[in-house]
Formats: sequence, structure tokens, C-alpha cells
Amino acid sequence: MANVSPRPLIIIAGVGNGSGVGGATAHLFAKEGYRVALIARKAEEMAPLVAELIASGGEAAAFAVGAYTHAAVTALFPTILTHAWPTPAPSALRVAVYNVGFVVRKPFLRVSPANLAGVVDANVHGVFAFARAAVEAFRANALDARGKRGTLVFTGATGSTRGGEITSAFSAGKFALRALSQSLAKEFGKENIHVAHVVIDGPVMTDWAMNNFGDISKDWKENLDVRVDPKGVAMAYLYLVGQDRSAWTWEMDMRPAHEKW
Amino acid sequence: MANVSPRPLIIIAGVGNGSGVGGATAHLFAKEGYRVALIARKAEEMAPLVAELIASGGEAAAFAVGAYTHAAVTALFPTILTHAWPTPAPSALRVAVYNVGFVVRKPFLRVSPANLAGVVDANVHGVFAFARAAVEAFRANALDARGKRGTLVFTGATGSTRGGEITSAFSAGKFALRALSQSLAKEFGKENIHVAHVVIDGPVMTDWAMNNFGDISKDWKENLDVRVDPKGVAMAYLYLVGQDRSAWTWEMDMRPAHEKW
Amino acid sequence: MANVSPRPLIIIAGVGNGSGVGGATAHLFAKEGYRVALIARKAEEMAPLVAELIASGGEAAAFAVGAYTHAAVTALFPTILTHAWPTPAPSALRVAVYNVGFVVRKPFLRVSPANLAGVVDANVHGVFAFARAAVEAFRANALDARGKRGTLVFTGATGSTRGGEITSAFSAGKFALRALSQSLAKEFGKENIHVAHVVIDGPVMTDWAMNNFGDISKDWKENLDVRVDPKGVAMAYLYLVGQDRSAWTWEMDMRPAHEKW
Amino acid sequence: MANVSPRPLIIIAGVGNGSGVGGATAHLFAKEGYRVALIARKAEEMAPLVAELIASGGEAAAFAVGAYTHAAVTALFPTILTHAWPTPAPSALRVAVYNVGFVVRKPFLRVSPANLAGVVDANVHGVFAFARAAVEAFRANALDARGKRGTLVFTGATGSTRGGEITSAFSAGKFALRALSQSLAKEFGKENIHVAHVVIDGPVMTDWAMNNFGDISKDWKENLDVRVDPKGVAMAYLYLVGQDRSAWTWEMDMRPAHEKW
Repeated sequence: MANVSPRPLIIIAGVGNGSGVGGATAHLFAKEGYRVALIARKAEEMAPLVAELIASGGEAAAFAVGAYTHAAVTALFPTILTHAWPTPAPSALRVAVYNVGFVVRKPFLRVSPANLAGVVDANVHGVFAFARAAVEAFRANALDARGKRGTLVFTGATGSTRGGEITSAFSAGKFALRALSQSLAKEFGKENIHVAHVVIDGPVMTDWAMNNFGDISKDWKENLDVRVDPKGVAMAYLYLVGQDRSAWTWEMDMRPAHEKW
Repeated sequence: MANVSPRPLIIIAGVGNGSGVGGATAHLFAKEGYRVALIARKAEEMAPLVAELIASGGEAAAFAVGAYTHAAVTALFPTILTHAWPTPAPSALRVAVYNVGFVVRKPFLRVSPANLAGVVDANVHGVFAFARAAVEAFRANALDARGKRGTLVFTGATGSTRGGEITSAFSAGKFALRALSQSLAKEFGKENIHVAHVVIDGPVMTDWAMNNFGDISKDWKENLDVRVDPKGVAMAYLYLVGQDRSAWTWEMDMRPAHEKW
Repeated sequence: MANVSPRPLIIIAGVGNGSGVGGATAHLFAKEGYRVALIARKAEEMAPLVAELIASGGEAAAFAVGAYTHAAVTALFPTILTHAWPTPAPSALRVAVYNVGFVVRKPFLRVSPANLAGVVDANVHGVFAFARAAVEAFRANALDARGKRGTLVFTGATGSTRGGEITSAFSAGKFALRALSQSLAKEFGKENIHVAHVVIDGPVMTDWAMNNFGDISKDWKENLDVRVDPKGVAMAYLYLVGQDRSAWTWEMDMRPAHEKW
Repeated sequence: MANVSPRPLIIIAGVGNGSGVGGATAHLFAKEGYRVALIARKAEEMAPLVAELIASGGEAAAFAVGAYTHAAVTALFPTILTHAWPTPAPSALRVAVYNVGFVVRKPFLRVSPANLAGVVDANVHGVFAFARAAVEAFRANALDARGKRGTLVFTGATGSTRGGEITSAFSAGKFALRALSQSLAKEFGKENIHVAHVVIDGPVMTDWAMNNFGDISKDWKENLDVRVDPKGVAMAYLYLVGQDRSAWTWEMDMRPAHEKW
């Protein structure tokens, strides 16, 4: 068989049931020709998204991780990178998106050790393992047309830069994630690996939000002026991936037009 | 005469001789179908850029402002907005870019009142007038397909968030500009006017830089890993203009892949 | 006459009628043995404060500045530094406090050129002149027991780090002032001149506030949990002046215990 | 037995061998009349400090914690709060200082799971337990003369606000700690519990530093202009504890006069 040039692969962790930023990112990058590897805690929740991506002509596969421990995340990467896709071309990991969140919103005195364990897995152990595996895979790539070996994007939140009254645990995690992203941007920019952190400073419309915010108004569900459409965030991620090496963004914020901040 | 739908207009202030961010932005938006109005201190310096834009099939005109005083900038807008362009369609101001810089790099005790006057015109008087005229023009627009009346972009710098040893005057100005941009984003987001601030945290390759940084190495001139290509910044501005109203960015940073920060 | 060791002098600019931070600082440092030179726009407003300071056994004098222009502020310093005090000891300027504020709180489109001129005098022209004269005077001092030639303190506000909907002009000024303070801290720390910036993130109880905030409740007037007592800020300034050279603070924030932020 | 008014107690976690900020804080607060409870990983390392404090007329006791796990730290507080001191007065916890650090300085790809576990114990699990126990004890206190039930101080570092090339793990932890401190300040300020975070932005002279920085020059050891004296930080902590409820500081930075930043 003649040489087959590799097909670009995106790994997206924190996909949930596909109704949020992870899912929108998967759809957008699939349309751009990327193979899509999805990571979430529950395999069954990802199934509909995988089916949609394949139905649209893409290649997609789901990889469940029981918990975002260092070991579990580390173990997942070889499996993903050697996955047998429908088409024969090998994969080249070019984009890794870490969209894992572990939301704890409660008064400080009610934060439990279990809450903290979840925060720490999502924002320290799991993401250090994820970033390490992604960086190591990027290093094996040649520079692309824009002078880049790979792009690693982290999803941030309002809590990434502000500790609020009921976000002690959540913000501790998100601050930690932001620190990591800045360190990585500085250390690996020199190797032409691009690391970015996007602060979503407004409510994202997901199935989870629909079920958990009891007071969601019809206006909120339908009005793009007041809540974040995951598609807009996905477009930011695609834009970041396309940035030329002479003007890379580490951090950008995003919020709806009418958001108070 | 039948109804002619308006043609989108971009106003770019701080174009200098066109070799930097202002010029690259002009080229990129002209290619996207915008009429381009250029503002700089010296008309003659803008002439080659205008000629290039027209030669490429665009509509462009230059407007000189002696100094960025409140009165001078205010006076310029009616002239621009009623300019007689080669084609008959009226103009609708959709994008305004404030790229005016006034660089002072010297020990604090050598900063002169004239230095401060330049800083204050560029970063307070001139920009308050510029932003006011732009906002007022945007308010007359209908929402576009992305739910936006107009976009106002400010060019920031490393000095926008850090006061350094020889940047007391420069940073005072850039901090002021950043504050204005944040206030405007909050006040006019509610009216679907998008305000963004881009922190260029690295050296931009312009004719000015070539002439003023005596120690420029060949590597620096040619290596996109170590200095900012104005085209990359222009692409960020175009991306911001295209953001959907549900996910608007106020601030993003940009730097070359190998920048130390 | 035998050698007389110099008496420490504090210059406080922005004293108003003495009911705020400037006045409290004057009282506290007078009690610590400093001569006090007061600067404000109106001489007559300072008269009661001067009288109180003298009645308490201090040495104090008021110096009016019509406006905080570069020239006016520059002209004031020789007058102050050569002032004939009641006692014969020469003065050594050891502390300079810049507490000048120019409050503009209005929608952006109603900000006038006159508002901007006031903001710029207070936060650029006037303070650059003030800082320059203070630094030059400090340089003539020997190191004190704490390894310091002098301390320059700037009063910041919530608007120093956040641009709000009705604070475009105010925040532009306060951001500029903050930038200056950071540059000075970096440049002159090496000469053992200490520069600090205190962000007062809450409402200060002054006569001005009493007259201008129509909705002041009795609770607000009397409850130290909800508004800033100028004495607390003055104590911070005294603490900063007393910091040893091995652990100098550039920036600290202050707010009442019950403030929402 | 007649009523005995309680004696103020300070708990200091992260004392090491007493040569740094924890030890200096212990000495200063002992002199101010506080009972001192010390926490560190190794009991034997604290012995000399305890002996010194007692020799100077203070009351001090050391409490070892094998690791800063949630359970271990939680278990320690009842032991400390019911400790039998030489004098009969009961203890009232008024000040808690969290000075625990877990330094990891290495390239990202060499950060191990064990490094992360140490970072997470010090900056999440241990400190959440510490803060919870302190807040609960403070709540039992009456307001003191300054309108305060207690003060909780966290020691930060340069890495608290900047992720650097070799500080991915360290900064992740320090960012998390800072987020927690901000959340606590907002949530418990309303209950007159004061929470502060001090960013030490420069090298502290400790025995550890002496042994681990191979290139320490004589100048660095002896020159207070270039490194932080723990006593200066301790004085900041004492100042914060003494702040009146109308002007509380959440965050302040500290660095030597000649530090480059």
C-alpha cells in the first residue's frame, strides 16, 4: 500500500451528553475534516453524539473514563491513538480540548471531601495527565502550515478568575487549571505547541443547565443575547487552532452581549 | 434611483504609514468587502496604502488628523460618514478600530509634559471622541445577521496590563484605554454593540520598529516565531467582528510562539 | 546655632475639606511627629484642618493649587520644601501621599471634554508632576532605620481595576494612576524609594459623600461594617511607611467587612 | 474557680523548622500575648522553636501532621483547641495562619503523580479542612474591640498569580489557594471574620532556601534589599490582624526593595 498521509485527530475531554461545548466542538471539527475522539465519564451518554457525527460523514469514537484520575486518563491515550478507524489513514493528534468541569456550588461549610476529590481529579490529576499525553503526541508532529505542532485548549469559566461566595471549591479547581494552562503556554510555545485558555463568563445552554437551573425562563432558553451558545465557543476554538504562530492567544473571555459583568 | 443597500464601512485610526496593524486590517477588511476609511496624523504617509487598496479593487480614503484632540477627532467623523465614494451606495459604519499609539519609553524623570500631552491625546481625549462617534453611528444600524450593530476594537499592548520601568507614561495611557474599553463593553453590550480589546504582548514588525530598534537581528525580521505579524492581528480583528452575539470576547492577548512572558 | 536634625515632612495632596482620607492621614502622621503640608484646590476648605492640627501641637500648612496641572503642581513643591515653619529644624520630605480624586459618574455619551480634562489633570499631568518632585526630594535623603529614602502612596479605588458602566472617565484616570504607581515602584525600588498603591474598594464616609449620595441611610453613616472609615486607611498608610525594605508592598486592597464584591 | 477570661490563641500551619515565615509569626504573636499552636509535618523539627518561645515567656505547643490530608488536619483541631496549657485560662482561637507550601519546580513533563498529590494536599484538601475548622472556631467568638471574630491569613507566592515555565504544579496549587481565600473573604466577611492573602513575591531567607539554592551569594544572605526577611512578613500578618472592620485587606503583595518584577 502506498503511503497514506495522516488524518488530523481531535481529542475532546468533558463531552457529557454532547449538548454543550464539547459536543459543539466535535461537530465543528468533524465538519473541518478531523477525526473526533470523545472522552466522558459515561459511554452511553456519548452514543447519540457519536452516531450523529458518523451519520454526517465523520469518523468519531467515544472513550469512557470512570473518573478523571491521573492513571485513568493516562491509560486512555494509547487506546485512542491506536484506535482502528473505518478509514486506513493513521491519526495525527493535532488538537486536544479539555472541557471537563466539576461543578460545586454550595456554601463553604457544606463542601465535602468528596466534592474536593471531584474538583481535584477534574482540575489537577486528570488534566495534568491529559496535557502530558497531548504534549507528547504533539511533539511527534511536524510543523503544520501555520508553524504549529498542535493546539491544546482549556475551557475556563467565570470562576477561573474570581472566587465567589458559593464557589470556593469550584474556583479553586478552575484557578488551578488556569495556572496550568499559563505554565504550559510558556513552556511549550517555544516548541511551537499552542496552549490557550478560554474563559466562558456566562451561562452555557446545555441539557444539564436546563435540568439544574430551576428558574430558567423561556427568554433565557431562546435568547442568544443572554446565554452562551456552545457553537460560538466551538468557533472560538477553531479560530484559535487556526492562529498563525506569530500571534497566538493564550487567553480570551467570552460572554453574551447582554451579560452583566 | 432604486434603493441601494448600504455598503459596510470600517474606520481605522492609527494607520501610520500602513506597515503595521492598521494597514493589515485595512487590507483584510477591504478584501471582505468593506469600504475603508483611514485616519492618521499625516495624510501623505497614508497615500501608498490608499493606492494599494484601490488598485486591489477596494474603496479607500485617507483622513488626516493633526493631533488626536477631542475636537479634531470629533470633527472628522461627519466628514468620513458623508464622504463621496466612487460607487453610489451609502455607507454604514460597522467596524471601528482604534489602533492609535503614542510610544514613550524613557526613565520616569525624563518624561516631559509634551510626552504626557501626546499620551493623553492618544489614550484619553482622542479615543473618547472616537468611541463616542462610533457608538453613535452604530446605534443607527439595524442588527446584522449575527445580532450586532457594530464592533469597536482597541489595540492594546504589553503596557496595557503592566507598568514597566521605562513605560510610566506609555502604560498610564494604555491602562486608561483598557479601562475605557471595559466600560464601553459593559454599557453598550446591552445595545448589541460589541467592544473588544486586544493585548498585543510582543513586538510588531513595522517600518517604525525597523527604524527605531537599532539592534534588530535578521532573525527577528524574518522569523514569525519571535515577532508579531500584523496580518495575524488583523485576522483576530476580523474574527472578533464575526463573533455571534451569544459569545463575545472583550479581551484577548496575542504573542509570538517563542515569546518569553 | 548648633546643627539641627531635620524634621520629617509629609505632603498630602487631595485633602478636600479634611473629612476624608487626606485629613485622617494628616492627623495620624502629625501625631507621629511629622510636619504636615496639605494640598487641595481650595485654601479656605483646608483652614479648619490646619487649625486642628496646630491646636493638637502639630506643625501644618495648607497650599492651594488652582488645578492639578503639571505646571501648577511642579511650582508648588519648592514653596512647600522651603516653607518657614514655626520651629527652626529644616524639613526632610519622607512621605508623599497622592489622594487626589476627580469623580465622574455618568453614562459614556454624557462625558464631556471638561470631565476628561479634570480626570487627566488629576490622574496624569498633576500626578506625574507630584511624583517627580517627591522622588527628587526623596533622593536627597539618607536611608532611614528601615532602609528607605521615602515613601510615595497613591490612593486607588474600585475603579482602579474595573471599568464599570458609568465609570468610563473615572476608571480611565484611576487605571492610569495605577500604571504609574507600578512603574515607579519598579524603577525606584532599586533606589530604596518605596511606592505603594492602595485600592479602596468601598464607599468612604466623607462630607462629600454625605452631600452627594442622596440615599445614605442612617445605618451607612454609623455602621463601620458597611463603609470605609478614613482612619483605617490612614493606618494602612502609616503601616506602609513603616515597612522594612525587605518586604515592601506595592498594592493592597481595603473594604468594609460586609462589602459585597 | 472564678471566671477566667480566655487567652487568645494563634494556630500556624506550615512552620517547617521555624526558620521562615511561620517561625517569625510565632515569635511576633507570642510577644503580643498569644498562645501559639504550631503545625508542621515533623514534630522534631518544631522542638527548638517551641523551646525558644517558652524560654521567652510564651506558651507554645507543636502538633505534627503526617500529611496535609483533609482527615488529618480535621482531626488536629479538637486536639489543639482542648490542649492543656500551663496556665489555666481557656483558649480562644483568634488567628489562624496557613503557611503550608509544597514546592515543585521542574519541567512539566517531569511532574509526577506524587508531586501532584503533595500539591493537592497542601493547597486543597489540607487547607479546606484547616479553613473550615478555623471558621467554625471563630464563629464561637464575640466581636473583639475592632469588630472582628477572627482572622485567617494565607501565605501566597509569586506563583499565586503567575504560572511560570517550571511552576505548573506549584502554581496550580497556589492559584487554588488564592481562589479559596477570595471566596472565604466574601462569604465570611459578612460574619466579621477577616480573611487575607499575602503574596510574597520574592525569595524568603530560610534554612531550606540556604540548603536548596546552590548559588546563594553572600550578598543574598545578608542584604535585606534583595530577599525577604520573614520578620517583615510576620509584621504584615500582625498588621492585618489589627485592621479595623471598616477597612479590611483581602490581598497585599510584598517583595524586597530591589526585586525585579
